[in-house]
Amino acid sequence: MVNPYQNLPEAVTIVEVGPRDGWQNLPEFIPTEQKIILVNALSACGFAEIEVSSFVNPRAIPQLRDANQVFAGIDRVPGTVYSALVPNQRGLQQALAAGVDKIAFFISASETHNQENIGQSIAETMADIEALLKMVSASLRIRVSVSNVFGCPYEGKVPIARVAGLLEKIIAWGVEEITLCDTWGVATPGQIFSLLQYLDDQDIKSDFGLHLHDSSGRALAGVIAGLQWGITRFDTALGGLGGCPFAPGAAGNLATEDLVFCLEEMGIKTGISQDLLLQAANMLEKNVDHLASHMIPFLRGCQSS
Amino acid sequence: MVNPYQNLPEAVTIVEVGPRDGWQNLPEFIPTEQKIILVNALSACGFAEIEVSSFVNPRAIPQLRDANQVFAGIDRVPGTVYSALVPNQRGLQQALAAGVDKIAFFISASETHNQENIGQSIAETMADIEALLKMVSASLRIRVSVSNVFGCPYEGKVPIARVAGLLEKIIAWGVEEITLCDTWGVATPGQIFSLLQYLDDQDIKSDFGLHLHDSSGRALAGVIAGLQWGITRFDTALGGLGGCPFAPGAAGNLATEDLVFCLEEMGIKTGISQDLLLQAANMLEKNVDHLASHMIPFLRGCQSS
Repeated sequence: MVNPYQNLPEAVTIVEVGPRDGWQNLPEFIPTEQKIILVNALSACGFAEIEVSSFVNPRAIPQLRDANQVFAGIDRVPGTVYSALVPNQRGLQQALAAGVDKIAFFISASETHNQENIGQSIAETMADIEALLKMVSASLRIRVSVSNVFGCPYEGKVPIARVAGLLEKIIAWGVEEITLCDTWGVATPGQIFSLLQYLDDQDIKSDFGLHLHDSSGRALAGVIAGLQWGITRFDTALGGLGGCPFAPGAAGNLATEDLVFCLEEMGIKTGISQDLLLQAANMLEKNVDHLASHMIPFLRGCQSS
Repeated sequence: MVNPYQNLPEAVTIVEVGPRDGWQNLPEFIPTEQKIILVNALSACGFAEIEVSSFVNPRAIPQLRDANQVFAGIDRVPGTVYSALVPNQRGLQQALAAGVDKIAFFISASETHNQENIGQSIAETMADIEALLKMVSASLRIRVSVSNVFGCPYEGKVPIARVAGLLEKIIAWGVEEITLCDTWGVATPGQIFSLLQYLDDQDIKSDFGLHLHDSSGRALAGVIAGLQWGITRFDTALGGLGGCPFAPGAAGNLATEDLVFCLEEMGIKTGISQDLLLQAANMLEKNVDHLASHMIPFLRGCQSS
């Protein structure tokens, strides 16, 4: 029998999305100074990329209204890419002025969720992203994140052909990095592998990453399925924070520490210091009510014995 | 590329161990009458087996001191096996008097954990189990659960050769059903697949099941690895309750509802009614402080939208 845990990729890139996706839904505002301290603590861990904030309407996501100040205040570590989400031209201008290293555009594969999240049809958002891409220098790093590719709280199953159609267009624009997001947190590992295989069969190829929420407790198993396919870029959030305000039932992202500890034990290099990551998680815990982490209570339980 | 999520087993047996492993560590005593109601609610779900209690020293595990009354009080559904853990001759006699359908003996693959858990060396416990097996009728259903096969809070990694040596002896006694337990909750999916492959390479064959705790958030991924090997019997606990009093840091079992919902979505039959399972979980929640379930808060989040 073929061992599906042999010949996995030797190393992965973990994109820390906590400061953006993890915090955007928190009820209490994390003071800007604390945000800066926390992002600096994450920088020290060795992440290749940190999603620092979103340049969105501050009325829609009040937590991230200080994106400008956070970008201005953080110490940038060479080798780490500091990215931000951008929904429109105004956000793009602010992000460029803030010196963001990489712009992440986003669209939903579900018509209803795109309407709830961005207030537009998929076609309108696609046209906007296409126009925005023409405004930026060819050297600027770009990612497009496609949410709800594995299911939608409003529409249920999302047709795979619709996902494929969106991806084809985004690839045709010249975008090289696309993240497939399970915003609702319902994908099974088998579903993830099948989607990746389907896209490959359809000759839809890109630098795909996975962004999995852990609402149903399946996110780590989903990452493993992605690894088995050959995916090496995964979004996670420190402490497992997160949840989309427009995806009812959705819980937090896969906790960074849960993934890092598991992969390192499997011999897969993450490039992240486990000690510094726990230090950052302990700092974060002082600012938020509850971390959805397995490793932190586990390690504490071991120490207290 | 071979799809490791195709050709998975079509059906699995889920052993509900909540009433035994899930509850044994709870600080508050669940009244016997409530236990009976909860076991009856589990019976209605369609489990092939429910681990109802342990016939152990009531001073060691006060929660399960009412094993006799629970067995006497429950309504037995045809097709469901009602099992119990037994550590010694006294427990065996009580279990047989209570009409237990299946006896589960247990031993740890870690010398230190066996000493902490049972107060004996591995060799002493092995000798005891061998003697007990000779006392029971050949028609009585038997399982032996071997704990800490993937790691130990006292000893760290447990040598695979020691695990293999124990299993060989147990199989030589004629025991046909053996459960490999990750009592500490640290096994990676790769480690699980590798152990199963190693045992097969060594020609150590049995009806193996997996009993995984979710301390590190890896239990569901571990079940998938077991399925990919061909394992079809998994222990889970309603609400993800549990944790061994003698395994510092260990958290609860994999939540039954998290596994059932995931496998059913993957087209793997569990034989369990998802509706009745959620009803049982809601009942359980009234008796305990906190369920470590993903599906219950997820489904509630979806309903409340």
